[in-house]
Amino acid sequence: MLKLEKEHSIYLFSPNNSPVIKVKPKEKIIIETMDALSDEITFEDQPFEAINWDRVNPATGPIFIEDGEIGDILEVKIEKINITRDYGVMLTGKDMGVLGNEFEKNYIKIVPIKNNKAYLFDYEIPIEPMIGVIGTAPKDKEIPCGTPGEHGGNMDCKIIKEGSTIYLPINVKGALFALGDLHAIMGDGEVCVTGVEIPAEVEVTFNIIKNKNWKLPMVKTNDKIITIASKKTLDEAAFSATKNMVEYLEAEYYFTKEKAMFLLSATGDLRICQVVDPLKTVRMELPLEILSRKGE
Amino acid sequence: MLKLEKEHSIYLFSPNNSPVIKVKPKEKIIIETMDALSDEITFEDQPFEAINWDRVNPATGPIFIEDGEIGDILEVKIEKINITRDYGVMLTGKDMGVLGNEFEKNYIKIVPIKNNKAYLFDYEIPIEPMIGVIGTAPKDKEIPCGTPGEHGGNMDCKIIKEGSTIYLPINVKGALFALGDLHAIMGDGEVCVTGVEIPAEVEVTFNIIKNKNWKLPMVKTNDKIITIASKKTLDEAAFSATKNMVEYLEAEYYFTKEKAMFLLSATGDLRICQVVDPLKTVRMELPLEILSRKGE
Repeated sequence: MLKLEKEHSIYLFSPNNSPVIKVKPKEKIIIETMDALSDEITFEDQPFEAINWDRVNPATGPIFIEDGEIGDILEVKIEKINITRDYGVMLTGKDMGVLGNEFEKNYIKIVPIKNNKAYLFDYEIPIEPMIGVIGTAPKDKEIPCGTPGEHGGNMDCKIIKEGSTIYLPINVKGALFALGDLHAIMGDGEVCVTGVEIPAEVEVTFNIIKNKNWKLPMVKTNDKIITIASKKTLDEAAFSATKNMVEYLEAEYYFTKEKAMFLLSATGDLRICQVVDPLKTVRMELPLEILSRKGE
Repeated sequence: MLKLEKEHSIYLFSPNNSPVIKVKPKEKIIIETMDALSDEITFEDQPFEAINWDRVNPATGPIFIEDGEIGDILEVKIEKINITRDYGVMLTGKDMGVLGNEFEKNYIKIVPIKNNKAYLFDYEIPIEPMIGVIGTAPKDKEIPCGTPGEHGGNMDCKIIKEGSTIYLPINVKGALFALGDLHAIMGDGEVCVTGVEIPAEVEVTFNIIKNKNWKLPMVKTNDKIITIASKKTLDEAAFSATKNMVEYLEAEYYFTKEKAMFLLSATGDLRICQVVDPLKTVRMELPLEILSRKGE
């Protein structure tokens, strides 16, 4: 099986990045990742000033996907996630996270992980690994890996995990896909500014979808279809995530706008992914069961 | 058992309302409610102009709870919810809901309900009744029942349902509690501007909690403790819901602020209640299991 080592990483999604590996649709590849701090933090008293802030949110790649043409959609199936270290790292403090202005100093927390449980203080938390950064190159600009957007990027969306399928735009030939910033566990919001940051190996397969005009990113899980939007405010992101789902229902199910809005208001969940990145991220989750289950 | 008929309703939470019934702590009472349109809509072609907009979001009450003194907390256990009509009503359209500016006209949808399922278009949706409006009188102002706030009110929070316990402030002697605006089913966000609006009978019991200084409203379910905040923007509401939970963890568990933030970032879910009322509502959900489960 193909494997891409974590040394091949980027800190910007960019059309100018050179691909480090070429992968065919349906070919399996294991992508090794560093944690969001480039694996630099190893103990709680580590001086904050020594952290290299130019090296946060690395994504491993970029990967060139064959047959991926501009205007196509890249389908990424997350086949498997294995975390590769026995501890995760969390940060919070001054100017970081929701209560950043209430802290005078910064805090590092080392979170031991054993038998699929994270030990945060004396609480035992079953882990649920997810991908924070996942995206493709934008068409004509460079976007730091710490920022989310229509290309994907740092969406910090906890439904992007083993078994999920992600849909991303192909803005340049081959897509130039990369991922990183795994979390052993994270709550909706990521309110302290990190999840439980961890390196991992992520097995994915790609597929190319032609002739669809969905507003991206989108995600499919076993039981839900999900639109994701990142904007300056949660209010704008909520609007966009809703509108993107309405347009998907119009395009794929031939709904009128009012039918889509009635269905989403009764059965769709508008949820927060994160509130702590340069843009905020909101998702709209619609149960697939609703769309498949017809009444009497 | 005590019963309060739906004819006893208010359209403002106010310290000046006269109580219509007195209830003792632990005494069961059934509260009958009208739907959010005061039961006025009965068919889809009904002229929108004929709806009396002064009579939206009625809450049945106010109920005077004995022993409830200013500064206490009112605990309200939702023992049982029975819907009392075989159809619900939804509205959307011009200037209503997330896509209000994309509609030229208004739409009414009648949603038949049978055997605990709602039939929206040809989709069959298991119902999950919840309370949209639930609150107590503010201290020194009047708040329309359509607006949420620290007194509760129109939070449109779908976890407020059978089995939940709600914590509200007692700002005036006897609390002057009221509830209404039941939904047979509603998604997080309530994006079209309504849930599936339905009249109901709600059985509740009250309890008075003394000497606690929690930031309210709060909710407890079988498996979660939840803070709720309503503000002009989702961003402000997200901040407040998070801060309120941090303060609860500081007060009740003697957490430091950073410990609370680490725990919430790893295991707490910051979620949207609704985005379509005069203020937006966000909740922070923390699994009770986390707080009770200690590691090795």
